[in-house]
Amino acid sequence: MQQLLSDYTATREHTLKLCEPLQTEDYVPQPAEFVSPPKWHLAHTTWFFEEFVLQPHYPGYKLYHPQYAYLFNSYYNFVGQRTVRAKRGDLSRPTVAEVLAYRQHVDKYMTEALEKGLLGDISYLIVLGLNHEQQHQELLITDLKYTLALNPLFPVYKEGFSLVGEGQQSAGDYIAVAGGNYWLGAPAEGFAYDNERDRHQVHLDDYKIAAGLVTNAEYLDFIEDGGYEYFAWWHDEAFSWLQQNNITHPLYWRKIDREWHQYTLAGLVPLAPQAILAHISFYEASAYAMWAGKRLPTEAEWEIASDRFAWGQRWEWTQSAYTPYPGFKIAPGAIGEYNGKFMVNQMVLRGASTATYPGHSRSTYRNFFHPHMQWQVTGIRLAE
Amino acid sequence: MQQLLSDYTATREHTLKLCEPLQTEDYVPQPAEFVSPPKWHLAHTTWFFEEFVLQPHYPGYKLYHPQYAYLFNSYYNFVGQRTVRAKRGDLSRPTVAEVLAYRQHVDKYMTEALEKGLLGDISYLIVLGLNHEQQHQELLITDLKYTLALNPLFPVYKEGFSLVGEGQQSAGDYIAVAGGNYWLGAPAEGFAYDNERDRHQVHLDDYKIAAGLVTNAEYLDFIEDGGYEYFAWWHDEAFSWLQQNNITHPLYWRKIDREWHQYTLAGLVPLAPQAILAHISFYEASAYAMWAGKRLPTEAEWEIASDRFAWGQRWEWTQSAYTPYPGFKIAPGAIGEYNGKFMVNQMVLRGASTATYPGHSRSTYRNFFHPHMQWQVTGIRLAE
Amino acid sequence: MQQLLSDYTATREHTLKLCEPLQTEDYVPQPAEFVSPPKWHLAHTTWFFEEFVLQPHYPGYKLYHPQYAYLFNSYYNFVGQRTVRAKRGDLSRPTVAEVLAYRQHVDKYMTEALEKGLLGDISYLIVLGLNHEQQHQELLITDLKYTLALNPLFPVYKEGFSLVGEGQQSAGDYIAVAGGNYWLGAPAEGFAYDNERDRHQVHLDDYKIAAGLVTNAEYLDFIEDGGYEYFAWWHDEAFSWLQQNNITHPLYWRKIDREWHQYTLAGLVPLAPQAILAHISFYEASAYAMWAGKRLPTEAEWEIASDRFAWGQRWEWTQSAYTPYPGFKIAPGAIGEYNGKFMVNQMVLRGASTATYPGHSRSTYRNFFHPHMQWQVTGIRLAE
Amino acid sequence: MQQLLSDYTATREHTLKLCEPLQTEDYVPQPAEFVSPPKWHLAHTTWFFEEFVLQPHYPGYKLYHPQYAYLFNSYYNFVGQRTVRAKRGDLSRPTVAEVLAYRQHVDKYMTEALEKGLLGDISYLIVLGLNHEQQHQELLITDLKYTLALNPLFPVYKEGFSLVGEGQQSAGDYIAVAGGNYWLGAPAEGFAYDNERDRHQVHLDDYKIAAGLVTNAEYLDFIEDGGYEYFAWWHDEAFSWLQQNNITHPLYWRKIDREWHQYTLAGLVPLAPQAILAHISFYEASAYAMWAGKRLPTEAEWEIASDRFAWGQRWEWTQSAYTPYPGFKIAPGAIGEYNGKFMVNQMVLRGASTATYPGHSRSTYRNFFHPHMQWQVTGIRLAE
Repeated sequence: MQQLLSDYTATREHTLKLCEPLQTEDYVPQPAEFVSPPKWHLAHTTWFFEEFVLQPHYPGYKLYHPQYAYLFNSYYNFVGQRTVRAKRGDLSRPTVAEVLAYRQHVDKYMTEALEKGLLGDISYLIVLGLNHEQQHQELLITDLKYTLALNPLFPVYKEGFSLVGEGQQSAGDYIAVAGGNYWLGAPAEGFAYDNERDRHQVHLDDYKIAAGLVTNAEYLDFIEDGGYEYFAWWHDEAFSWLQQNNITHPLYWRKIDREWHQYTLAGLVPLAPQAILAHISFYEASAYAMWAGKRLPTEAEWEIASDRFAWGQRWEWTQSAYTPYPGFKIAPGAIGEYNGKFMVNQMVLRGASTATYPGHSRSTYRNFFHPHMQWQVTGIRLAE
Repeated sequence: MQQLLSDYTATREHTLKLCEPLQTEDYVPQPAEFVSPPKWHLAHTTWFFEEFVLQPHYPGYKLYHPQYAYLFNSYYNFVGQRTVRAKRGDLSRPTVAEVLAYRQHVDKYMTEALEKGLLGDISYLIVLGLNHEQQHQELLITDLKYTLALNPLFPVYKEGFSLVGEGQQSAGDYIAVAGGNYWLGAPAEGFAYDNERDRHQVHLDDYKIAAGLVTNAEYLDFIEDGGYEYFAWWHDEAFSWLQQNNITHPLYWRKIDREWHQYTLAGLVPLAPQAILAHISFYEASAYAMWAGKRLPTEAEWEIASDRFAWGQRWEWTQSAYTPYPGFKIAPGAIGEYNGKFMVNQMVLRGASTATYPGHSRSTYRNFFHPHMQWQVTGIRLAE
Repeated sequence: MQQLLSDYTATREHTLKLCEPLQTEDYVPQPAEFVSPPKWHLAHTTWFFEEFVLQPHYPGYKLYHPQYAYLFNSYYNFVGQRTVRAKRGDLSRPTVAEVLAYRQHVDKYMTEALEKGLLGDISYLIVLGLNHEQQHQELLITDLKYTLALNPLFPVYKEGFSLVGEGQQSAGDYIAVAGGNYWLGAPAEGFAYDNERDRHQVHLDDYKIAAGLVTNAEYLDFIEDGGYEYFAWWHDEAFSWLQQNNITHPLYWRKIDREWHQYTLAGLVPLAPQAILAHISFYEASAYAMWAGKRLPTEAEWEIASDRFAWGQRWEWTQSAYTPYPGFKIAPGAIGEYNGKFMVNQMVLRGASTATYPGHSRSTYRNFFHPHMQWQVTGIRLAE
Repeated sequence: MQQLLSDYTATREHTLKLCEPLQTEDYVPQPAEFVSPPKWHLAHTTWFFEEFVLQPHYPGYKLYHPQYAYLFNSYYNFVGQRTVRAKRGDLSRPTVAEVLAYRQHVDKYMTEALEKGLLGDISYLIVLGLNHEQQHQELLITDLKYTLALNPLFPVYKEGFSLVGEGQQSAGDYIAVAGGNYWLGAPAEGFAYDNERDRHQVHLDDYKIAAGLVTNAEYLDFIEDGGYEYFAWWHDEAFSWLQQNNITHPLYWRKIDREWHQYTLAGLVPLAPQAILAHISFYEASAYAMWAGKRLPTEAEWEIASDRFAWGQRWEWTQSAYTPYPGFKIAPGAIGEYNGKFMVNQMVLRGASTATYPGHSRSTYRNFFHPHMQWQVTGIRLAE
């Protein structure tokens, strides 16, 4: 319990620390449906503890505000109605100060409950809540980057702050893995999401996987070779996506006076050629691999080889669609909505990124996004 | 010049006074393309003086910030590119404090220039700038109402604040006006917008116009008589608009537990039956008139009779489309973009509203909006 | 009655004559919501006589097919549900042969009724039905032109067929009209649509109106002077319309190998410079007038001067919005839906066109379309 | 070669036979982007032989019409521009007769070439062309059903015609398959599409798969149990799809006077309870399986067990996303566009349907559609 309390405190404080450099106005805008305002992340992660921990398990707990469940429920249909996702940026109230007061209220109860052991045997729920908040920390910072990048003033979140990964093995080296049967997925004991289970056997053919990730310079070669104009490198709907959205380069790249720059949370800076490429969609990752005469690895290939290369700076796109493992079970009630209902039209990413909370990663972790999404700290590892 | 300085100071201070009750977060959201955030109104009205007065006429004036013209230009194509209108709510920077500093900077120069007579003979431009700011004051408060009304918390802007008009002549009385030739529009001397000129003759047939405006109670009769369901009261595209947007009552009315309420800037309150109806579209005004066996007046009928009834609490929809008067001339350059380019697909409103700056009204004033717009303080005066 | 029978026969036969050059496949497509397939026009005009004449007035008449009222009602809410307008092109059945059999059936009953005088005193209804069919003849041929023009094969409807007007007074001459009070609108006796009444007095200032219409060559000057790129000639929403739809020339013009061509119902031909410009929107007409330093006439100016110039080759855009005349009354029931419910967001056109049924025109006739519509045989007459 | 000629003749004649019951008008409409008019299918399958066989391989062959490649290319970017997919129904020309003449022309050359052996060793290309046409035969009849079903007249394509499967094993029986390593995919020899290769090993856990397919009666239980209203049976985006499109039952079911009917190509008939369910999306298949406490099989599970149950009446949804097999290679040039570029956001279907050309099926065949598509003859086989 002492460990849980200290994890709780550390995770909750980390969220606030991420917000320290913000101006009040930065907490409000939502420029696209898939991003959420920082204010909402602060409140939603708090609501998770109130809804799933305090309300059912803390004797006599009273809701802090009758409307907050409606405002800060993200998608849990089991727990009632929720505000329309695309409308979060329309709400100026509650204010940031009111949301912080809500956090303090819930933290006070949670801390007291953990200190005094008032909650019964629900440590799994609390660990889930902390993992949930760690996921939202990553979203908070990547959502914020998306919002600030749209601003013609290119605001600086924090001088010196960087999500750029550095110092990796040469992308040129390939690791050979022998074919055969392997075990995939998380073991039954220890914390893991439901989508990482059951641990099960798969057969792989011989394959090779790159030791390093694709760099900005390598990706620039693809662009300069006309990569975004030539249909044959792209999936059919990827090429339509390029044309409809007029996409000709990665999300945060800007060509100014013939020089490539990239928006970072420290402002707009010249493109660093040797840095690891980031913020590309599955469509772009796949097209790049095709152009390079390679392919993306499957998630099984990635996981099996993952102890033989360094990872953790990018979420790495795989060519595996996000579908259930054999034996996957959906838990009853709202907690069961966590993962299963997204298992269609999304691709699996493996690894972790420079925006990931320390320790919030493991080799069996299955992240997933729609193939056109660019705003996460995603990268490319090739296979063949 | 002394008068101009005092008008300048009073107008500029009134804008700030309107913002006094706001929280910082309230300055940011833009929930629909046709509303703008308070922050933007504060900056845009300031930019108008910088762009059209200080920069061309104050010797040696330097722009406060190189990007502000791009960010705060509303629609003047003559003065270069501008940020996309629908995206104003995506910008958290500049902050409110930075925008207020921009206002102070421009006010300092304007005040000094007016005190010392540094600007030459451009009082017309300054009066135009003040009228422009007065228009934006009205938009600021009506835009704000639109934003707060969407919030499930129904925030209170200011206790006791009201745009509800009170104390009017009975709507039942009609004023008879004899047919004949009349003069319409603003005389050549004195301040008026270009769209009020040239003053010209029109012929009117005999008509009657209501002494008072339609009340909430009267409009409720229309609703309860099935007014929103029966196509024959509505224009063809009005009925499509109702169905596509699922509209069954005025914008700020809410039926809660079988009782009608209305959102006001003092919060959600029970509907006041005798208060003057507000916030309805031309479509609704026209359908109501049809149901009542009457019609809306033309703008000429309104203007000619306007000294025989009380007005000024609502902008009143007419059945006149917004087209140019005979002899209408578009001024060269950006100032000429003020009115003429909107003369299609909009309807004329006459009068003024409880949100209008004191004195910012006259019987020749031509306001105009698209026929589906509901968020202004609009009302209905019948004719026959 | 003899005259009515002969008018009936002539009008109905003219519709079939327009269809003679068609292939069966041409009767089906509907490439845009605002156009209708020829098959639909054939059936809908027939349905009008069945619904408003035979069913209520022919003793014992039985509906030809129970579903045809649903399929071929255009917009009359009073007579029940109707198929969605945009979906007319999705229906392959009834076939053309079945629709022609429906026409023959109704014609047989109508002819017999007119010969034997079985219908009572409803000649107004029959005249309305014939005028209705004449309007649809014009739509049939302009809708067809729209459909065939989209086809990369540029099909020929009929060799030698032309809607191009020829032989007019020089567009350079202007006719001066003295200001004063004039009478506008149709007299109470004789056939006219409800929107042309009541006849009423208007006051006009002195004005001049062009004796001729703008030619292709004159409009080409506007294009080559950058007319479609320069915002100041355009209404604000017109310029958005240009940009969103990538419009840079009139609807049927095509630049092929640096030479301007136009699609006609006789196929694709080189642009005739001296022919009268056709198929332009109000937005384009207004922008052209602005560029030329002139303006469009009001509908009153057009009507008062109409006996002093030749007209009838183009529908001519005016700067008058389509609103009711003083004393305009909506007839009870479905017939009342004919005109009044469209009196918003549309502009008035005066005259007639080369696609108009002979005799289906008069100087008080008020045609109307949305300001962005280009597919009618519209033109420009300037005023000042 | 004799076999090839006879296959060619049989396949080409089968296409025409499918069209025999059609009226000319039926060849034209395209009520949704994903369906194509019969006229287009007739022409496109012909163009395939002209483009890939005759033009490159028949000495001196001249294109039948210079524009047909543009009009009838479906999606092969390698062979140049193509007409916009959604616009096929806007084209009345070429007429059906002209398209049939085009078919005859190409058939004459193909037949002669096959008889005389003029083409060299390209039998793979011709077999591919025949398989391509067989796929389009299935699309032609399912597209046609979609179009006719929208028509309020519920047209009969052909009396007695049915795609309803009959006479199957009880859906209640399950076949147990032991876990282990198995071989998946098509062997290197013989005709198969590129997406069925390479044949490779997979590991499967123990599983059970249903001997029969879900019937209408069983699916009706799901509906009557509120299946379409309860979010927890559905993927997140499936539930949004239901709500946005107001979907409450399978595509061709209609409830008329409280009785369920289904549209068939023999017209509207009462729902047959014991017939096999058809025309459901992956979303619906997956929701049904969830409700039933089962799941859909993976494509590997289906293929391995496929010799132990009857199949061929429905395309059966699997829970496998459509991604490349290990060793999948994209052929150079246009032929390589056949399959690979669609390997994202689609789900695999296995089996064949009552609309499939006889013999156009094998146990390794991988069909694929987007998960919301309903218009194919799809069904549900459960697993656990």
